[in-house]
Amino acid sequence: MKKNVLIIGAGGVAQVVAHKCAQHNDRFGAIHIASRTASKCEAIVASVREKDAMKVKDGVIAAHGLDALDISATVALIRKLDAAIVINVGSAFVNMSVLSACIETGAAYIDTAIHEDPLKICETPPWYGNYEWKRREAVAKAGITAILGAGFDPGVVNAYARLVEDEYLDEISSIDIVDVNAGSHGKWFATNFDPEINFREFTGVVYSWQNGAWQTNKMFEIPREWDLPVVGKRPTYMTGHDEIHSLSARYSTADVRFWMGFGERYVQVFTVLKNLGLLSEQPVTTAEGQQVVPLKVVKACLPNPAELAPEYEGKTCIGDLVKGKKDGKDREVFVYNVADHKDAYNEVGSQGISYTAGVPPVAAALLIADGTWDVKTMVNVEELTPKPFLNLLGQMGLPTQVQVNGEEVAVDFAG
Amino acid sequence: MKKNVLIIGAGGVAQVVAHKCAQHNDRFGAIHIASRTASKCEAIVASVREKDAMKVKDGVIAAHGLDALDISATVALIRKLDAAIVINVGSAFVNMSVLSACIETGAAYIDTAIHEDPLKICETPPWYGNYEWKRREAVAKAGITAILGAGFDPGVVNAYARLVEDEYLDEISSIDIVDVNAGSHGKWFATNFDPEINFREFTGVVYSWQNGAWQTNKMFEIPREWDLPVVGKRPTYMTGHDEIHSLSARYSTADVRFWMGFGERYVQVFTVLKNLGLLSEQPVTTAEGQQVVPLKVVKACLPNPAELAPEYEGKTCIGDLVKGKKDGKDREVFVYNVADHKDAYNEVGSQGISYTAGVPPVAAALLIADGTWDVKTMVNVEELTPKPFLNLLGQMGLPTQVQVNGEEVAVDFAG
Repeated sequence: MKKNVLIIGAGGVAQVVAHKCAQHNDRFGAIHIASRTASKCEAIVASVREKDAMKVKDGVIAAHGLDALDISATVALIRKLDAAIVINVGSAFVNMSVLSACIETGAAYIDTAIHEDPLKICETPPWYGNYEWKRREAVAKAGITAILGAGFDPGVVNAYARLVEDEYLDEISSIDIVDVNAGSHGKWFATNFDPEINFREFTGVVYSWQNGAWQTNKMFEIPREWDLPVVGKRPTYMTGHDEIHSLSARYSTADVRFWMGFGERYVQVFTVLKNLGLLSEQPVTTAEGQQVVPLKVVKACLPNPAELAPEYEGKTCIGDLVKGKKDGKDREVFVYNVADHKDAYNEVGSQGISYTAGVPPVAAALLIADGTWDVKTMVNVEELTPKPFLNLLGQMGLPTQVQVNGEEVAVDFAG
Repeated sequence: MKKNVLIIGAGGVAQVVAHKCAQHNDRFGAIHIASRTASKCEAIVASVREKDAMKVKDGVIAAHGLDALDISATVALIRKLDAAIVINVGSAFVNMSVLSACIETGAAYIDTAIHEDPLKICETPPWYGNYEWKRREAVAKAGITAILGAGFDPGVVNAYARLVEDEYLDEISSIDIVDVNAGSHGKWFATNFDPEINFREFTGVVYSWQNGAWQTNKMFEIPREWDLPVVGKRPTYMTGHDEIHSLSARYSTADVRFWMGFGERYVQVFTVLKNLGLLSEQPVTTAEGQQVVPLKVVKACLPNPAELAPEYEGKTCIGDLVKGKKDGKDREVFVYNVADHKDAYNEVGSQGISYTAGVPPVAAALLIADGTWDVKTMVNVEELTPKPFLNLLGQMGLPTQVQVNGEEVAVDFAG
């Protein structure tokens, strides 16, 4: 009996997830897409049909309306659809309610970003300890597989770190994750994914794990220029990011940092909005007495990231620079992927950022479906064997490349 | 029987108006302050008491709650208080409803800024033609005095133009009004008066009157550096402003332009907010379905201009550079005022921008009270004899200075 998949969410990432599930529906059962706005799910279904993406042409793909904050509604939908795998790429605010529904129904759970409370920004590290890991026991008891943070970053970059641990280094002293989008969307300003989640990433303290402890910095305080394959020299800043909060547990003696590429325009916009209080998640009261969360208004004014795709050009480079020792000698390993916005659009109708985030959870779902990753417990991606995942990603459009001490090396992930 | 005054509004300008009315309450009857939030009016009354500002110590000063958009409530309050002069320094959205109440009750009307429809920005020029001048006949029929735009700019700068017409030039070829605030409030960013009204001034087309016709430009398109008395060299940009829309009628063969000083920070903030759509007066819908006007949220996030006063330092310079001919020879006349933020705060508890806007309508009210300006019709300030007004302003804290061809000249306004 092939497993039915329920995709939660209807943004740019959900679009990629739906297309990729469709392209591999010979290994899944029915594919369902649910979000608050059913019409957005219907548009995704229409886009899958338009691209003729279903591998098994008479397979099921269907749209549903669902408030994923409503656990009993989610439970009911999972049961009604007999969904065995839930790929949650909805807002980060719904993660824990969707996970609860999976625990209750026995469905496997996959997400791509940390759970967030709408009224809290940048909670105490490690972030996974605040919500996800508290449910580890409940997940184990229910005997379900819950894979946390299985997008690109977090997700693939966690697998990259594990690959280096397994294959390239005896001892790891630092993991620097770098995420550079060298593409251009042609807008004056836009975020590449949900503006609310995007800005929330950067309005709090910048947490990094260094010298065996959590360190704090301010946003845009620590710049670093990278010289990356294909995209070249790019400015980045040290920022907080989900994967630091799990990798720091497994690699507690290593420094774990995250570097995000930002153009001047982003820094300009962020600086103004942040300083004016417009990125606040806390409600303000207008002169007319209306209670409003400024960040939600900023989101409403900005371009919908899903609509950037048609004009998006250029490439992304995301990878892990891991330093340590091999056979007693210093060695550095850079594991990375380069993706192309136009290629992504031509294939699935989304831009490259959505593509890199949306393909990995489908790979994870395929590995749950075939049993490889069906571990019946809660895990972060670095806890899973990375090669089958990276092998599958290579086949699905996100090839992994590896440089050892600056030299490109060939890797056989199937081996 | 001395005339009772009703002040509408409770912001920084209303604070100045209340203090100045109090300082001259030997020439008024009772002083009343009304706004939507009665507690704000009470705070102003408390501040007047604290400064011991009442000239006639046992005179009446009282606070009231009023929704000034509600004409019948305003009519009722004017009647109850037996107010003969209404000084409207509330939001620009209430002007026409307050004027209607004055027409109905026979009270004199004074405002300091053009009427605005919350849902429209930068309407067809001349702006006074859209709302105010349409009621000229009704005002004349009711036999009331309605003085439009009697703040500093518009207001005093209109009187400056008229002074030049009366005293210094036979023929006027251009009127350039310049408004530079060289003060500093110590905040990362703040507007000097209601942010909503402030930004609305600059989000539309920049209208100027040149070559006998309305010309349009974009905001921050036309820069001009001025070298001004006291404040020195300052960058300004050509902007739209109320007074152009009345001065262009009286001085139709002259060019009429307005130049506002802006620091880099203002340009930075404005550019980001404008480009993101956050200065829009049109509602947007959040992902949660809430209807919100972005500009009102920006306003709610910014510092309250009334609270800038204690830290404000430095000076303002506002004036008219008027060019033309006298006795057949080219001549240029610069009529201006320099005000000081700290002096304003020490005297009335408001900063200099509020002070320059709030003193003139009280001078106008005094001139209505003594009959000099009680013209029983609707007028813009340039239609009134300027010397008594400028003389009174000199006594009240806003002295006028005049330069002819760059040389300071002595002026006797009492003459």
